[in-house]
Amino acid sequence: MTRAPAPVWVGVDVGGTKVGAAVVEEDRVVRQTHRATPGARGAETDLEDLVVEVVAAVADGAPLAGVGVAAAGFVDGTGELVRFAPHLPWRDAPVRARLEERLGARVVLDNDATAATFAEWTLGAGRGADSMVMVTVGTGIGGGVVTGGRLVRGHQGMAGEFGHVRLVPEGLPCECGGRGCWEQYCSGRALARAVREHWDAASDLLTGPCGGEAERVTGSVVAGAARAGDPVARQAFVTVGGWLGRGLAALVAVLDPEVVVVGGGVSANGDLLLGPARDVLRESVVGAGHREVPPVVAAALGPYAGVVGAAGLARRGPG
Amino acid sequence: MTRAPAPVWVGVDVGGTKVGAAVVEEDRVVRQTHRATPGARGAETDLEDLVVEVVAAVADGAPLAGVGVAAAGFVDGTGELVRFAPHLPWRDAPVRARLEERLGARVVLDNDATAATFAEWTLGAGRGADSMVMVTVGTGIGGGVVTGGRLVRGHQGMAGEFGHVRLVPEGLPCECGGRGCWEQYCSGRALARAVREHWDAASDLLTGPCGGEAERVTGSVVAGAARAGDPVARQAFVTVGGWLGRGLAALVAVLDPEVVVVGGGVSANGDLLLGPARDVLRESVVGAGHREVPPVVAAALGPYAGVVGAAGLARRGPG
Repeated sequence: MTRAPAPVWVGVDVGGTKVGAAVVEEDRVVRQTHRATPGARGAETDLEDLVVEVVAAVADGAPLAGVGVAAAGFVDGTGELVRFAPHLPWRDAPVRARLEERLGARVVLDNDATAATFAEWTLGAGRGADSMVMVTVGTGIGGGVVTGGRLVRGHQGMAGEFGHVRLVPEGLPCECGGRGCWEQYCSGRALARAVREHWDAASDLLTGPCGGEAERVTGSVVAGAARAGDPVARQAFVTVGGWLGRGLAALVAVLDPEVVVVGGGVSANGDLLLGPARDVLRESVVGAGHREVPPVVAAALGPYAGVVGAAGLARRGPG
Repeated sequence: MTRAPAPVWVGVDVGGTKVGAAVVEEDRVVRQTHRATPGARGAETDLEDLVVEVVAAVADGAPLAGVGVAAAGFVDGTGELVRFAPHLPWRDAPVRARLEERLGARVVLDNDATAATFAEWTLGAGRGADSMVMVTVGTGIGGGVVTGGRLVRGHQGMAGEFGHVRLVPEGLPCECGGRGCWEQYCSGRALARAVREHWDAASDLLTGPCGGEAERVTGSVVAGAARAGDPVARQAFVTVGGWLGRGLAALVAVLDPEVVVVGGGVSANGDLLLGPARDVLRESVVGAGHREVPPVVAAALGPYAGVVGAAGLARRGPG
């Protein structure tokens, strides 16, 4: 007689481009898989089919102890609905209950940045902190807040929407309809824009991977060239890291956290980004001479923060 | 035989221009008094003498149940020290223990904006809210934060320093050494600046009280003229209220509070200030079409929020 497999905790990260799922034991990802997301034009049920499919694939026949779902969108304060998600089809969709019914296991639903914040706070770079600000820098900016040993979700579950804090009045237009939003100045796209402005001075390290075409530059091309020493690419990190520091100064003035954790794809470049951010934060935070400036550290869990955090939130239960 | 007077709770508000003290029963100020502050150049002990003096005056022979002291400066996270206060002589001063020894009663020390936030949250305009942002608009901007039913003090007791959130890169210079700080655009001084820029169009309602001299305009002159219908003064409130709304949009994106309470001297002008602030907040907050914009309401306790909150914090005890 074969022994029945032990129940597993699964974390699911529903992003704009892919749905990832993982079986998580404490802070360890045991197995993971992912699928491409149908995008904002797909049907709500197609996306839920996909979540059910990746959970089944990753669970691999083991019973589900519980499933945490982290979604790249606004999740309401009760953890029941995805109110709105720019890159996903869900609109005021009761995702938690629908997935719980289909999966036959307890489901906890939360925002993806909140899940990543929970993961970094409980198991990653912010472990042990009583208060923490997490900022994720990727295509855009997301974030999360911990104060007094608790996650801050906000009255409507919308706390931590740092990307659209306006840093520049009448600044660059943003997809949100506003102007001058932080993520227009600090993101992978901002890195690409910064090198395009100095394209004439770029070396082969930068132009080579794009066949010489400035419009083909991406954040990861800039990162590769910067690591290899291209001065235009390095300067782009100084510019974008500086804007990271300016936004952090606002968050530190408001929240005075013990630690600032920076995650997301662009943060994988470590001190290339964080060095200039720390310099500008130190110069611009209020009361600089009379306070300790909080450490700004890179996230520890990398791209797995979302699934690890989602599984952790499911294990902990709502609250 | 005369009955001994009942012990009283006293709240003290140590500001840049005066020290106020009050005997507070629940939300009721029973008696109050105040004295002029010696200013930043006075001795630390002179200021403490003054606190002891106003407490004795207001207690009027009654024994002290406890004393709450709200100071216009950075109070450290333990509630023991005033780290720094631009308009007071205290520098890393162990004010709580020194006053406790001199007063012979339990003393709780906190930041003045935190005390005002506590008062408005427990007894004023934010009563019953689970989360709240309070912004005080006066000479500068102060503030406080409540999330998850608790005051947020921050790791070093410096949360809520909204006044120096930078809204304009390379904007107006600020006393803090930075540029473009929120309080440069939203304060009594900003009102005066806004009318000076359109002085040629000002009516007698505005020029009269200043003897025609633009440099003599103050926030309260602008307020009086605006209430009387002067168009330049009213436009100044639209401008300054708009900047209030822009800053609030950032705080709402970060914290998603249930309610926003606006206090401080300039807020006494009610909808003259809050109307334009609400309009701009509604236009500029992230996810405007998919969220309820929190109500922006005037503080209820007026100039007594500091003393009432300080007494309330003393009654509640540290934490």
